[in-house]
Amino acid sequence: MSGPALAVAQVRSAVVAALADVPPDALVLVACSGGPDSLALAAGVAFVAARPATTWRAQAVVVDHGLQDGSARVADEAARACRGLGLDAVVVRVGVDGPGEAPARAARYAALERAADELGAAAVLLGHTLDDQAETVLLGLARGSGARTLAGMADTRGRFRRPLLGLRRADTLAACAAQNLTPWHDPTNDGAHPDASLRSRVRSEVLPTLERVLGPGVADALARTAAQLRDDADLLDALAAELLAAASAEDGLDVDVLAAAPPALRTRALRAAAIAAGSPAGALLRVHVLAVDALVTDWHGQGAVALPGGVAAGRSCGRLALGPAPAPREVPVRAVDQEE
Amino acid sequence: MSGPALAVAQVRSAVVAALADVPPDALVLVACSGGPDSLALAAGVAFVAARPATTWRAQAVVVDHGLQDGSARVADEAARACRGLGLDAVVVRVGVDGPGEAPARAARYAALERAADELGAAAVLLGHTLDDQAETVLLGLARGSGARTLAGMADTRGRFRRPLLGLRRADTLAACAAQNLTPWHDPTNDGAHPDASLRSRVRSEVLPTLERVLGPGVADALARTAAQLRDDADLLDALAAELLAAASAEDGLDVDVLAAAPPALRTRALRAAAIAAGSPAGALLRVHVLAVDALVTDWHGQGAVALPGGVAAGRSCGRLALGPAPAPREVPVRAVDQEE
Repeated sequence: MSGPALAVAQVRSAVVAALADVPPDALVLVACSGGPDSLALAAGVAFVAARPATTWRAQAVVVDHGLQDGSARVADEAARACRGLGLDAVVVRVGVDGPGEAPARAARYAALERAADELGAAAVLLGHTLDDQAETVLLGLARGSGARTLAGMADTRGRFRRPLLGLRRADTLAACAAQNLTPWHDPTNDGAHPDASLRSRVRSEVLPTLERVLGPGVADALARTAAQLRDDADLLDALAAELLAAASAEDGLDVDVLAAAPPALRTRALRAAAIAAGSPAGALLRVHVLAVDALVTDWHGQGAVALPGGVAAGRSCGRLALGPAPAPREVPVRAVDQEE
Repeated sequence: MSGPALAVAQVRSAVVAALADVPPDALVLVACSGGPDSLALAAGVAFVAARPATTWRAQAVVVDHGLQDGSARVADEAARACRGLGLDAVVVRVGVDGPGEAPARAARYAALERAADELGAAAVLLGHTLDDQAETVLLGLARGSGARTLAGMADTRGRFRRPLLGLRRADTLAACAAQNLTPWHDPTNDGAHPDASLRSRVRSEVLPTLERVLGPGVADALARTAAQLRDDADLLDALAAELLAAASAEDGLDVDVLAAAPPALRTRALRAAAIAAGSPAGALLRVHVLAVDALVTDWHGQGAVALPGGVAAGRSCGRLALGPAPAPREVPVRAVDQEE
C-alpha cells in the first residue's frame, strides 16, 4: 500500500477534526510522555502543523513527574523525539503530593495549564485512547460511582482536547511502528509489575477477560456507554444546580423544595451543597450523601450528619444547614457544682 | 449459636420488609425454580407466612420452561420442596419462543402474571440477588447500553418484588444449608457447560476476575451504581416523555422544539417515538437513534433513515415524521419508452 499506514492516517484525521475550530495563528500544545499514545499524537500533530493549509502552530510539552528513577532521562528522550518530529518541546518538572494515580494526574494537569497560560496556547492535546476510556469506566464501576464518573473523559474540557478517544491503543502502536518511532513503555503499566497501578491491572487482566467472555467489542461498548452517560450527567448536573438555587434561603436550604424534587436531582444538589460547604469531593461518598438525604426524606428528629472535612449537615425548623461542624459543647461543670 | 443462622434471619427480614405494605388477607406468590436463591426465598416466605402476626397468605409457583431434558421432573421436585415448607405449590408449563435468556424470561414473567391474575395475588416475589444485579450491569455494559439498562432490576415493578436484591448468592446458599434444604443446581449455570449462557460466563469468569483485581466489594459497587442510575433513568425518561409531548404536532414532531432540548432528552424522546412508530425496542440500537438525531441536529437535506421493523424517519418542512417505510417507488419505464 502506498501512502501512510491506516493508523497513521487515522491519527492525522483525528488531529484535523479536533482542531477544526482553533483560531488562525493559535498555539496548540501536545502533551507527550514518550509513550505510544502521546508519541503517535505528537507525530500526527507535527505532520498536520507542517501542512501549508494549517494556520495554527504546535509545540510539545513533556511533564516529568519525578516518580520513578530515571524519569528525567525518559522526559528528555520524549522531548528529543518530539524535536525529531519537528516540534519545539519543553520539559516541565513537577512535584507530586502522595501516591496513586490522582495526585500525579492533578500535578500533570496543573503543569499543563500553567504551560498553556505562559505560552498563550489555545488548546492542549492529550493522547487518551478508547482503551483509556474503557478502563476509566471499569474503575468507576468498581467504586460504585454514578453517571458522572462512569461518563469517563470528555473529548473537550476547557482547553484540553482528546483527539484519540475514538482510536484503540493498538492503533497508536501501529502508527508509531509505521513511522519508525520507538515509544517508551512505562514498566508500571505492566500489570505484573510490583508497582502496577490498579489501572494497569484493569488493562492487563480485566479488559482481556471481558473481551474473551463478552466479545471483542467490549471496549467500544464501554466507550459508547460513557458517551451516553456523559449526556445524562451534563443535564442532571445542570438541573441539580437549578434545584440548589431554588432551595437556597438565607438561613439554609428549604427542606420542602428539596423533598419535592426527584431523588436523582436531590442527591446531586445535596452533594454539591456539601462540597460547597467544604467537604472534599474525593472523600464524600454516596453513603454520606444518602445520610444527608435522610434528613430531608426520612426525618424523625435525628442529629446532625458528620461529613468528611469537618463539615456537618443538620436540620432545624424546615431548613437544612451545611457548614463547619460545631466545636464540642463545653459542659458547664461549675454550674452543676453551684447547684449542689 | 441458638436461633436461625444469620443468612436465614436476613432472608426472613427481607421478606418482612418487602411485604410491609400488602393488604391484610392478600395472596402472595413466590416464584421458585428450586435453585438456591428462590428456594431460600420460599423458605423465608413460608416461615413469615406462618407467624401469627402475618395477615397475608402465601403460595408457590414453579415455572417449567421445558428447555432441558427432565425439566418437568425438576419443576415437580421444586413444587414438592415448597410443599415441604408448608406452601401450596402449582407448576405452570410454558412454551419458549427461541433461544437465549430473553425469550425464556418473557415466557416466565407472562406465566407469573397469568398465575397472579387467576389466583388474585397482590404480589409475586422473585429470588434475584445482588449477584444477579451485578451480572445484569456487566451484561448491559458489554452492549454499550445507557442508564436504563445499567440500572438493572428494580426491587418493585408492578406486582413483582425482589426482596433479596441486597443479599449475596452466598447468603442464599448458606440459608438453604442452615435449613437442610437441597437446592437444584442448573447445569447451564456452570460457565464451563456447553450450553452455558453469557450470564453464566459473566458469573463464573468475569465477576471473579473483577473481584480479584479490584477487590471483593465489586458486586456491591455494581449494585450501588445500578441504584443511582435507576434514579437517573426514571427522571430522564419522565422528562423525555414531556419533551415528546411538547414536540408532537399533527403532522409530525417539531424539529425546533427537539433541537432546543438537551441531547440526553432528545435521544430518549426520539427512541420512544421510533418504538411508538413500530420499531422493536430490542432491535433499535444507539446507532439508529443517532441517525434520526442527525436529522434534527445535523440537517443537510439527507434522505429518510431506515429503522428496524420497516419504520422510516424523515424530515420535511421542519417536521420529523416516523412511520412505515414507503413501498419502493415504481420506475415509470413505459413513459421513458414513449418519449424515445
